Amino acid sequence: MPDSLRLFTRTQLDELDKSYRRNLINGLSGYKSLCLCATQDAEGRMNLAPMSSVIHVGAHPPLMGLLLRPHVVPRHTLENIEQTSYFSLNHVTEATYRQAHQASARYDPEQSEFEAVGLIPQPSERLPLPYVAEAPVQIGLKLRERHLLLANSTVFIVGEIQELRLLDQAIGADGFIDLQKTQSVTVSGLDSYHRGERLARLSYAKPDRDPSDLPL
Amino acid sequence: MPDSLRLFTRTQLDELDKSYRRNLINGLSGYKSLCLCATQDAEGRMNLAPMSSVIHVGAHPPLMGLLLRPHVVPRHTLENIEQTSYFSLNHVTEATYRQAHQASARYDPEQSEFEAVGLIPQPSERLPLPYVAEAPVQIGLKLRERHLLLANSTVFIVGEIQELRLLDQAIGADGFIDLQKTQSVTVSGLDSYHRGERLARLSYAKPDRDPSDLPL
Repeated sequence: MPDSLRLFTRTQLDELDKSYRRNLINGLSGYKSLCLCATQDAEGRMNLAPMSSVIHVGAHPPLMGLLLRPHVVPRHTLENIEQTSYFSLNHVTEATYRQAHQASARYDPEQSEFEAVGLIPQPSERLPLPYVAEAPVQIGLKLRERHLLLANSTVFIVGEIQELRLLDQAIGADGFIDLQKTQSVTVSGLDSYHRGERLARLSYAKPDRDPSDLPL
Repeated sequence: MPDSLRLFTRTQLDELDKSYRRNLINGLSGYKSLCLCATQDAEGRMNLAPMSSVIHVGAHPPLMGLLLRPHVVPRHTLENIEQTSYFSLNHVTEATYRQAHQASARYDPEQSEFEAVGLIPQPSERLPLPYVAEAPVQIGLKLRERHLLLANSTVFIVGEIQELRLLDQAIGADGFIDLQKTQSVTVSGLDSYHRGERLARLSYAKPDRDPSDLPL
């Protein structure tokens, strides 16, 4: 092993200070998507929570996945999704990341995080969910399936996309969404926010040649 | 809806050109983690595949999740994990992202992607898996559980971290991993690679005050 690498065995991980371990393990997944998940309950009371565990599941049918920690912070999110079957995912930007971070605070259950952090709920005309009006990428989803992860009682849910509202000027001729135009941000660890700077778009990989740069 | 947003209904999504829809839907999850997943089969033959659907699952026990598309490219990855129960995740960097992209090509099943793209397999001293020697973050995991997603026959697996090998100088005093020091990259859509530029680290959110910037 090169000198510059530091080894942590599993025993050493288990013996670390709890806060140090939380930072370390949360950092391992690298740069993460950052979305605000917006929901409402059966009475229309709205909830907002930042989520950094959103993944692409498939394009056709259009599916996204999300890990929820029902025993930690965003309890209302899962309860609302179970009541209504609907939720929205909304990109966090350079203009809103401080409000998104603040939305993770443990507010009084009667208080809407929208009001508390100063973001505007935008009702959908078709679906029982709010979007975040400020977001350049707004995704409306219907719950498709849920999986309880036995390892730590978290819940992985899969949502099927019902409608999209996207910043028009960020959509390329080939459908590519330019995240520098949307000014979407990415989070690392628990609390570090970043903008992206493009290195390259690469052509589809084939075994017999090196990838080439796509025009931007 | 503001004029600058473009609406796609579900019907419109289903009617899009296939390649356009793939780009569009793959872009919705924003900036994504990018890791090389390295495995070996029971005979020690090694496989390498880029993965952009890695998420943090929990810190204690230390768990990570990963979505695999067994019916598309990285078939050997899942087969190998099922044979040995082990796999590694390795951060892709500014120095290796072109090789990582190339590793997604459909090579002959007998050929190791390590050799084909010119990355060095680094055996673990304790676990039946290779790491990517060039990676500043190398994570050794044991399969803990798997979930078949009925919506599109993909497989979500949860691995439990058995050992870590991390670039020493990138680990902060509080356990925070500085991804600018590791030069880890993030991917958006299918083919766009980015470095991160830090905006801020923010203090733990509390309901009664705004978050403040943490020192770097």
